[in-house]
Amino acid sequence: MKILVINCGSSSIKYQLFDMEDESVLASGLVEKIGSDSAIIKHQVPDKDEKVVTGEILDHRAGLNRVLALLMSKEDGVIQSAEEVKAVGHRVVHGGEYFSGSVIITSEVRQAIRKTIDLAPLHNPPNLLGIDAAQNQLPHAVHVAVFDTAFHQTMPEYAYMYPLPRVLYYKHKIRRYGFHGTSHKYVSLRAADFLQRPLEELKIVSCHIGNGASITAIQNGKSVDTSMGMTPLEGLMMGTRCGDIDPAIVPYVIAKEELTLAEVKSMMNKHSGLLGVSGLSGDMREVTEAMFNGDTAAKLAIDMYVYRLKKMIGAYIAAMNGIDVLVFTAGVGENASLIRQRVCEGLTFFGIELDKEKNAERSKEERRISREDSKVEVLVIPTNEELMIARETKALVESF
Amino acid sequence: MKILVINCGSSSIKYQLFDMEDESVLASGLVEKIGSDSAIIKHQVPDKDEKVVTGEILDHRAGLNRVLALLMSKEDGVIQSAEEVKAVGHRVVHGGEYFSGSVIITSEVRQAIRKTIDLAPLHNPPNLLGIDAAQNQLPHAVHVAVFDTAFHQTMPEYAYMYPLPRVLYYKHKIRRYGFHGTSHKYVSLRAADFLQRPLEELKIVSCHIGNGASITAIQNGKSVDTSMGMTPLEGLMMGTRCGDIDPAIVPYVIAKEELTLAEVKSMMNKHSGLLGVSGLSGDMREVTEAMFNGDTAAKLAIDMYVYRLKKMIGAYIAAMNGIDVLVFTAGVGENASLIRQRVCEGLTFFGIELDKEKNAERSKEERRISREDSKVEVLVIPTNEELMIARETKALVESF
Repeated sequence: MKILVINCGSSSIKYQLFDMEDESVLASGLVEKIGSDSAIIKHQVPDKDEKVVTGEILDHRAGLNRVLALLMSKEDGVIQSAEEVKAVGHRVVHGGEYFSGSVIITSEVRQAIRKTIDLAPLHNPPNLLGIDAAQNQLPHAVHVAVFDTAFHQTMPEYAYMYPLPRVLYYKHKIRRYGFHGTSHKYVSLRAADFLQRPLEELKIVSCHIGNGASITAIQNGKSVDTSMGMTPLEGLMMGTRCGDIDPAIVPYVIAKEELTLAEVKSMMNKHSGLLGVSGLSGDMREVTEAMFNGDTAAKLAIDMYVYRLKKMIGAYIAAMNGIDVLVFTAGVGENASLIRQRVCEGLTFFGIELDKEKNAERSKEERRISREDSKVEVLVIPTNEELMIARETKALVESF
Repeated sequence: MKILVINCGSSSIKYQLFDMEDESVLASGLVEKIGSDSAIIKHQVPDKDEKVVTGEILDHRAGLNRVLALLMSKEDGVIQSAEEVKAVGHRVVHGGEYFSGSVIITSEVRQAIRKTIDLAPLHNPPNLLGIDAAQNQLPHAVHVAVFDTAFHQTMPEYAYMYPLPRVLYYKHKIRRYGFHGTSHKYVSLRAADFLQRPLEELKIVSCHIGNGASITAIQNGKSVDTSMGMTPLEGLMMGTRCGDIDPAIVPYVIAKEELTLAEVKSMMNKHSGLLGVSGLSGDMREVTEAMFNGDTAAKLAIDMYVYRLKKMIGAYIAAMNGIDVLVFTAGVGENASLIRQRVCEGLTFFGIELDKEKNAERSKEERRISREDSKVEVLVIPTNEELMIARETKALVESF
């Protein structure tokens, strides 16, 4: 079964075509600058050179049409006809309280995604555009929505409610939703498989730390709490997002700097985190390099990043009253051995004992980086949200 | 040596007169509704009936004058003349970055307190009024300022900086200050004394949970982190304050509900926390009673309160990579055995083992409530900020 996974931004389409017989990637790519006459498609077939095409692409439908043409082209094609794509898995950011799992897209589902636009005004509209385009171009396929929020719908009420007047929940659906759910679910499944232990017996703290970053407490295979909240701003310090701050700072800064609401949101989402503190970059590699070159602001940014990560891990261990497995994933989690080392060195009280040599090895593989005698298993699990979306899609198609 | 401790609000003066020979309280009381013709003074001499006086008190000077008259009166007096008051200890809420300890009040000190008004607009102005009044009425006495923030000035930079653009720190002094410092310092000193162990060897997590609530990590006798931030809004869920929320909720609610900045601040400070979730009360006793009567909103409020407290304790254990002593203090911490029990029951992984019977005993004494075999000592230490202020004042007078 061939499954296309797509992830649409306001002017982009990220795609990956899987052959689900062996879960191999037949092709993948990215369409950028949709809506302009200088759109770019970067198309990659494994073991071949990347193909780059530029030209006018005015909307997501046209973009997807071009992608399908590439997938079927003589030169770079991997399928003969569009009908070979049996299903399309759509990444949808926000499912609100409507979706606690992946679903086949019906008009009711589209309606519910539309109702959730208020909570994800930047993400759900392009996700809907992608669904429209794909249903138009691939009308024979089964279309499935896989939500970033769905995995976290198992959180208990005391974990997802905010200590605010309850009317805000009833009236505006203000509560913790959490994000990166597809990734947290994927790595928790992989962790159990890697350890050959039943997922139901494990208390897992999963650290998805990339440009965005969130921690999830996973017990019995279910998300019981997660650090991102109503929006992806809450929780950890990130590349350019502040994460947790004193909420009184928001009105204070609005008043002092005479900011609009859009400006204060932009400040917290795009000009804070590693970038805001270092003054240099939101990219961990660049900030780390600057630190090694003696930049004190970069050093502070990394000290804060590590410290806040440690505290959040402690909080989630407390949430479950225990931990069996600590997982690192996503860009920083998979590659920044220094961050992993500094975090784990400060958590020995919890039974976390890192194997420094294993941790320092560079690898793209799933691996254990804790010592043999560590009470807590520490794993690096490269995340694969696209594969997870493809698997969820396949499961729904087969149960259809 | 007789020391008067005063704590001024915008329309109130709380006072306590100590004889520092034996640290006994000679008299204590509260002046309320200053600025009106129906002000009230409640004056208490130990082992006597409380005296209540009403009448016109137009400003703090007049209020303090009335208090001194009571202290010297034939009927209720405890001193012969105002000269007996050798020193006055003033509680000042915000010392900004100027003060890392208590100080004798000079014109420079008053100037610095004035400069910090922006950070504590509700508290520092009445504190200054109190200083003015007391210096005017007791010109012979040594006046000392004891700051809520001072104990926390030992926090490392990575703990007190926010992951925001650094210009906000340079320009507006936006950073974590922390509050309840006098209480956290007092209970940490008492804890070491109670356990007969050197403070320098202990990792203490101190939970000051009253109407306001904060947690402090104390290592080597020094505050290394605390949950309140630039303002007393951050951190734990409190009686009427929300504590930590997704900061993106602030602009969201402002927009959705068309709130002014004052209104959103009021919502987060006065209509949230236990009150906001239960819809009933910000008082733990009332919410607990409602829960026992089957109120589901009250139950949720308490579940959230306990859960957030547990997570924060976990975070501070991670901050120190360990814990030797967990201290509960202030109204809820000293009296709500149910809250202490539920918190500790969920933290056994950390070596916290509560003695349920000891915990359930009602007492006003300092006491251990952990089991003999608990790795972590759990203590209830009644706080006494007034006594701490008197001690700090005495120490400064003696070193003068």
